[in-house]
Amino acid sequence: MAGKTAETRARILEAAMGLFRRQGFEETTMREIAAEAEVANGAAYYYFDSKDAIVLAFYDQAQKELAPLLDSALAGAKNLKDRLAALLGVKLRYFEPNRRLLGALAAHADPGHPLSPFSAQTREIRERDIEFFGRALSGSRVRIAPDLKPYLPRILWTYQMGVLLFWIYDRSAGQRRTRKLIERSASLVASLVKSAGFPLLRPVRKLVVELMETITEPS
Amino acid sequence: MAGKTAETRARILEAAMGLFRRQGFEETTMREIAAEAEVANGAAYYYFDSKDAIVLAFYDQAQKELAPLLDSALAGAKNLKDRLAALLGVKLRYFEPNRRLLGALAAHADPGHPLSPFSAQTREIRERDIEFFGRALSGSRVRIAPDLKPYLPRILWTYQMGVLLFWIYDRSAGQRRTRKLIERSASLVASLVKSAGFPLLRPVRKLVVELMETITEPS
Repeated sequence: MAGKTAETRARILEAAMGLFRRQGFEETTMREIAAEAEVANGAAYYYFDSKDAIVLAFYDQAQKELAPLLDSALAGAKNLKDRLAALLGVKLRYFEPNRRLLGALAAHADPGHPLSPFSAQTREIRERDIEFFGRALSGSRVRIAPDLKPYLPRILWTYQMGVLLFWIYDRSAGQRRTRKLIERSASLVASLVKSAGFPLLRPVRKLVVELMETITEPS
Repeated sequence: MAGKTAETRARILEAAMGLFRRQGFEETTMREIAAEAEVANGAAYYYFDSKDAIVLAFYDQAQKELAPLLDSALAGAKNLKDRLAALLGVKLRYFEPNRRLLGALAAHADPGHPLSPFSAQTREIRERDIEFFGRALSGSRVRIAPDLKPYLPRILWTYQMGVLLFWIYDRSAGQRRTRKLIERSASLVASLVKSAGFPLLRPVRKLVVELMETITEPS
């Protein structure tokens, strides 16, 4: 993108995010976004054909800005529990200013909705995010059972989505409860991943694999 | 409730549910509900002060009508996997006509929203539903680790909510994918409950208990 074009697009995105935060996603119109960004309505629509497209651009920008932060988080933690907690900590700090906006967007769990974390439109962002969980595993000292290996990053990513949902609705001061949840759930998840390698649990692993095949098969 | 009063209330509830199914929850007004039930607006508001109150009455009625069906489902299944699958099967059959409505309501995961399955307003219905999972466990032949026992019914109920969410957004013909999901996930969950009793997994159980304490503590 040429300089001016990229700059205008960024200005519209920033103006929109500010309005979404201050007055809510549903309550904001494309007209207000254009006015706030000081561009013509037509210009705003030239860059983003809808508010949904703006949110997708925000997801995309978040993914790019988060990547180096997640890299350092992983570089600074050795064992699996700390690596998981570090990834989650980075996410929460990054999204903190937009926590309420994410609350409004959390209504879209339906994979058929473009803004859903499970949609076709967010697939690329999702797959790149899942890779970080693959690296959380591969860089730890835990031996992963080979049969589970292809599925484990996605399972850990789903665990992350559960934590984010808890956080979005966490009304405790400074989301203290979510900190505790991360601390304890990361311990549990790391411990489950390790235990999953026990020979005794081979039949359970087989059931996990079959379940994941059912969930991830095309509908 | 006296005969006529109960009958009017039931008529309003039935009219509302019909409209919610045909034209959508958001799109339906209290005025339309009153007209459909052939009562005055004031009368409709006398029984239900909002559409949310109507949905809560529907949840409550569902709980009552489901109870004997869940009883027979449990009476007809011995092992834990079959007992879980039977409970889920009854729920899906019962809610089938209102699957789309539940999709609209699924947007309210926020425990602060009255219609959320995690809200204060739905607590009584939730606790009664959790009891069925307690009975699914106690009537099976699985030996439950005593430390996990107080938490397992709630964990199984949460598993049920995940399956219901999958079903709500399942676009496969006749929700074929959900049938497969239930079959496989019920096997996995039953197998996990059994394995949880292994002495080797005592430390993992301790982490589950700590996590459940975090999640269920008052905020």
